[in-house]
Amino acid sequence: MKIEPLSITQNAEKLIENAGRTAYLSFGKQKKGSERAFIRMLIKSGHLSVLEHAYATFRVTGGSRAFTHQLVRHRLCSYTQQSQRYVDESSFHQIEPDSIRSNREAHKLFMRFIKNSKDVYSKLQEMGVQNEDARFVLPNAIESQIVITANFREWRHIIELRGSPEAQWEVRGMVIEILRLLKNHAPTVFEDFEINNSKKVIEKKKIH
Amino acid sequence: MKIEPLSITQNAEKLIENAGRTAYLSFGKQKKGSERAFIRMLIKSGHLSVLEHAYATFRVTGGSRAFTHQLVRHRLCSYTQQSQRYVDESSFHQIEPDSIRSNREAHKLFMRFIKNSKDVYSKLQEMGVQNEDARFVLPNAIESQIVITANFREWRHIIELRGSPEAQWEVRGMVIEILRLLKNHAPTVFEDFEINNSKKVIEKKKIH
Amino acid sequence: MKIEPLSITQNAEKLIENAGRTAYLSFGKQKKGSERAFIRMLIKSGHLSVLEHAYATFRVTGGSRAFTHQLVRHRLCSYTQQSQRYVDESSFHQIEPDSIRSNREAHKLFMRFIKNSKDVYSKLQEMGVQNEDARFVLPNAIESQIVITANFREWRHIIELRGSPEAQWEVRGMVIEILRLLKNHAPTVFEDFEINNSKKVIEKKKIH
Amino acid sequence: MKIEPLSITQNAEKLIENAGRTAYLSFGKQKKGSERAFIRMLIKSGHLSVLEHAYATFRVTGGSRAFTHQLVRHRLCSYTQQSQRYVDESSFHQIEPDSIRSNREAHKLFMRFIKNSKDVYSKLQEMGVQNEDARFVLPNAIESQIVITANFREWRHIIELRGSPEAQWEVRGMVIEILRLLKNHAPTVFEDFEINNSKKVIEKKKIH
Repeated sequence: MKIEPLSITQNAEKLIENAGRTAYLSFGKQKKGSERAFIRMLIKSGHLSVLEHAYATFRVTGGSRAFTHQLVRHRLCSYTQQSQRYVDESSFHQIEPDSIRSNREAHKLFMRFIKNSKDVYSKLQEMGVQNEDARFVLPNAIESQIVITANFREWRHIIELRGSPEAQWEVRGMVIEILRLLKNHAPTVFEDFEINNSKKVIEKKKIH
Repeated sequence: MKIEPLSITQNAEKLIENAGRTAYLSFGKQKKGSERAFIRMLIKSGHLSVLEHAYATFRVTGGSRAFTHQLVRHRLCSYTQQSQRYVDESSFHQIEPDSIRSNREAHKLFMRFIKNSKDVYSKLQEMGVQNEDARFVLPNAIESQIVITANFREWRHIIELRGSPEAQWEVRGMVIEILRLLKNHAPTVFEDFEINNSKKVIEKKKIH
Repeated sequence: MKIEPLSITQNAEKLIENAGRTAYLSFGKQKKGSERAFIRMLIKSGHLSVLEHAYATFRVTGGSRAFTHQLVRHRLCSYTQQSQRYVDESSFHQIEPDSIRSNREAHKLFMRFIKNSKDVYSKLQEMGVQNEDARFVLPNAIESQIVITANFREWRHIIELRGSPEAQWEVRGMVIEILRLLKNHAPTVFEDFEINNSKKVIEKKKIH
Repeated sequence: MKIEPLSITQNAEKLIENAGRTAYLSFGKQKKGSERAFIRMLIKSGHLSVLEHAYATFRVTGGSRAFTHQLVRHRLCSYTQQSQRYVDESSFHQIEPDSIRSNREAHKLFMRFIKNSKDVYSKLQEMGVQNEDARFVLPNAIESQIVITANFREWRHIIELRGSPEAQWEVRGMVIEILRLLKNHAPTVFEDFEINNSKKVIEKKKIH
């Protein structure tokens, strides 16, 4: 899976401080670095709505339709996804779970199935079936590109929920990469989330 | 596809009038049948937020995952959907498009593919692959049950968008059935939508 | 403040179980009383989206515009509110905080101010100023009726946030009454919230 | 009223094209200026969700609480607003409608009332009443700063709704200024909206 940042709010942490100080009309307290203490205060006190003024958009390539169907259940985001009605999928890429790839027999079975799915799809097209209906034989394993935009409050929510050990491995992998990128742009907003590289999960710690 | 109403707000049109008159404190004008003129006024003048106080929940059985993936893109609804992580799908039902069923060769090809998909899924299970990963060989054609709740304003939006000729045939079929049911419970709220049975589409007319 | 229930989903807990079992296709486990264990499982495991299928609508009378301005910041609800553009407010009711009423001097000052506000409003009307502009002299203390609809998941969120000691006293009073009503209709959905009558706050306890 | 842009998505129209082409995997068609035809196609065909990937944040100064109470009813935006619980309002600024300012008697009456409101507020403070309760004597005319963030699809919706002749004059004035700023950053996204300077309204025209 590849995560490509398409757009992230510039100077996001300064923007959050600048917007957030409107509640208190405390603009005079802004100075170099003051956003760090301000954002920590917001997170500790639960005033998370201020984090909604900053946004990040990512292109996610190499995820399956099993993954995207789950992802788009998050309703406070915006999505644009590869359409199986518009796109000819006769030579699609497949996503193969590790549990299948690591087993020689399972892997052979899987690859044969993928080949069969492409063949049937193409034959249905040749018989005059539209892409819209031919896609009924496409499997969950098919790669589906998706662009997702969410604000920082929502990214925190998705990262917490989908970085946990119970989350599906693709969506967990996605949020780990996204967290890495977001920490570069807004270290304080995401500082209470830590990537555990050995366990491939995200852990939440208390802010002091 | 089968649509089963699970819950619809009782006396929905009277509730809408009762809530809506709060804006004007015009409760004295409520009488038998007065909700009809009130709701028409709301729709004509675009004060659609008042329609949000009434809700309807439906169970949709017999739709494909192609259909549900599209459906859940509507973000102002609530969904509960059959999970391919929790449910053993080794003997799943398939949804077959008319364009395939009506072509003998295409139909045979499709059915053989479905059989193959079930076989591969079961074999992967036997090899110790979890449902979560075995599902990667399940096709879009697989049946997926889903329960959907939306308010009347959002149902109007979905009906208009998905009842049009360009909409996918499953989602179009769904909104036609749902409109039929909603017209029984709230005839005035949905009176400007008409089912064209021969074309299997929904048409919007002006209210006079 | 008076809270009047206008509509609450019928058999809400049974509906939640019936919708929620769709994820597992475990309908066979439904029996008399089984909704209690099912809903507790949902809440413990954080599968709160299933609670969104049930709704409650209340009319709130006797709240101030200070209160409603804060209330409508909750964005996952539907509102219909008394309009100061449509309604003639020349003899409005005022909401008086306890901290003012309990101080004889403050109370006299407050009541004289309210009288002055009504006088100025009426004189502006007489001079030909429309209600839309005359309302600029109406105070936060003015009563404003509002109808609010939210699903049970959102009610849980509002109750937790606004039942805490830091919340404004009007909105805290509102959620205490609403919790009382919701506990009658859906005791399991709201069982982890308890009203502390002496402190006039809501406390959250762990479910066992 | 003063509108200050705090943050607008960089290269918003190119981002929209880049995200939008994901649906068709038609990235090869991107070239200098190609975003114009692409965005027109989106708007004509109603595929407005792609516009949600771009955002704009504005600080609005010089609006009344009558105005902000109405504004925050738009639920698909993010707000941070000057708080009457945190801020001492004893020397507040007032917003005076033209219909009052242009009438010498009305103006005198209004200014006397504003003075009285400040006096009563300060006296209540001196008597020990907290800001949270003293604010009950603050009028709708009081200035309230607010920061608002919305995506371009939502800005189009707000501009259409609030730029019409029926809209309240403050909110209409706000969207006219915001449209002017947005047209600089994303001329194609907003090209079907035109400011009628003499009537002080926004008109929507067809795209060819």
